[in-house]
Amino acid sequence: MKHYDSKEIGKLEKIFRLNLINSCTGYKSANLIATKSESGVSNVAVFNSVIHLGSNPAMLGFVLRPTTVPRNTYKNIKEGGFFTVNHIHKDMIEQAHQTAAKYENNVSEFHQTGLLEEYLDGFYPPYVKQSVVKMGCRYLNEYLIIENETIMVVAAIEHLYFQEGIQTPDGWLRLEDAETVAINGLDGYALPVLLDRFHYARPGKAIRSFFNKESSGKL
Amino acid sequence: MKHYDSKEIGKLEKIFRLNLINSCTGYKSANLIATKSESGVSNVAVFNSVIHLGSNPAMLGFVLRPTTVPRNTYKNIKEGGFFTVNHIHKDMIEQAHQTAAKYENNVSEFHQTGLLEEYLDGFYPPYVKQSVVKMGCRYLNEYLIIENETIMVVAAIEHLYFQEGIQTPDGWLRLEDAETVAINGLDGYALPVLLDRFHYARPGKAIRSFFNKESSGKL
Repeated sequence: MKHYDSKEIGKLEKIFRLNLINSCTGYKSANLIATKSESGVSNVAVFNSVIHLGSNPAMLGFVLRPTTVPRNTYKNIKEGGFFTVNHIHKDMIEQAHQTAAKYENNVSEFHQTGLLEEYLDGFYPPYVKQSVVKMGCRYLNEYLIIENETIMVVAAIEHLYFQEGIQTPDGWLRLEDAETVAINGLDGYALPVLLDRFHYARPGKAIRSFFNKESSGKL
Repeated sequence: MKHYDSKEIGKLEKIFRLNLINSCTGYKSANLIATKSESGVSNVAVFNSVIHLGSNPAMLGFVLRPTTVPRNTYKNIKEGGFFTVNHIHKDMIEQAHQTAAKYENNVSEFHQTGLLEEYLDGFYPPYVKQSVVKMGCRYLNEYLIIENETIMVVAAIEHLYFQEGIQTPDGWLRLEDAETVAINGLDGYALPVLLDRFHYARPGKAIRSFFNKESSGKL
């Protein structure tokens, strides 16, 4: 196996290290975060750092570096307190990636990329019309990660919208049916294919699949 | 589209809500975190919350609820300061899921699941031998998310190991070649297929693929 220790990682060329360290932690969620400034300029930016934080109350988080792009996202969230999170569909990966370009503050990435704004139930920031799963979120708090001055934003999920056909009877969203992508590193977009879904694991009991009623015989 | 607001989400049956809210934020990374207690008992547990935090220095984070399973992971990390993060390969999804079962404290999930311990370069906790990408990590800090009493652990990547053939010349790890999976919710395992990889986005310039040298013509 190839091995790098922390000293060797520290000496790598910057872009090589960015590519390596961004990809070594595994696949990431692929979302567009949309906001709107007080003066009415909409903003949308690709994020690979949206994470689940809790179900009751429903909460998510995402990590950003406020001193770099996308600054507008952070500024708008701090000003207005609301943002939307919209899944990236396989047919919109080019537009999603294009939102990472450094546009001027008064330019909406919606207008530049062909992503469409959608306003739902009186929520101030836009949703991405093309997205199959989308959430309206309210800023709750932020945590400064002092080790590298990134910020984790914590938010409540106030609204959740999705195409009805992707939900299974037990509540789960089958993301394969939504054709939601995952991100490999900073710039690789991948479409996952469901291998299996398993019931709750118990000591000494074989894992049971949701799809094959028979035990596989393996622990 | 189906719509739930936060009040409706709050009233959902618990397991239904867990399935829904864990899947609505998109695909998650699929890793096994391994530790070893001071008394020498190894531990390995599936985590879908490992995230990238920074490249220089190389840092990752993960979220846990220390008052529930997997407690041993947190206890061992606090005691010893070190842990490993190991990608879940498509051929080990059953074993990975089985690690979530509530075994007694003195039982190693390695022995119960067929996952193999591997010790590398004098690092105290074991790696998972079958994993194609694995990292040795040092605890740096933790942040209590007061909104729901989860904890984000922040760690330095001290060692990084991977199968050499999966790295592209610019440092990126092609996770499709590693056959690393992604997690949909708490219990769905999916294998991503790479759609495309894009160069750095710039205003007014068409997105360029790493694979098709020609512009697609779309922004």
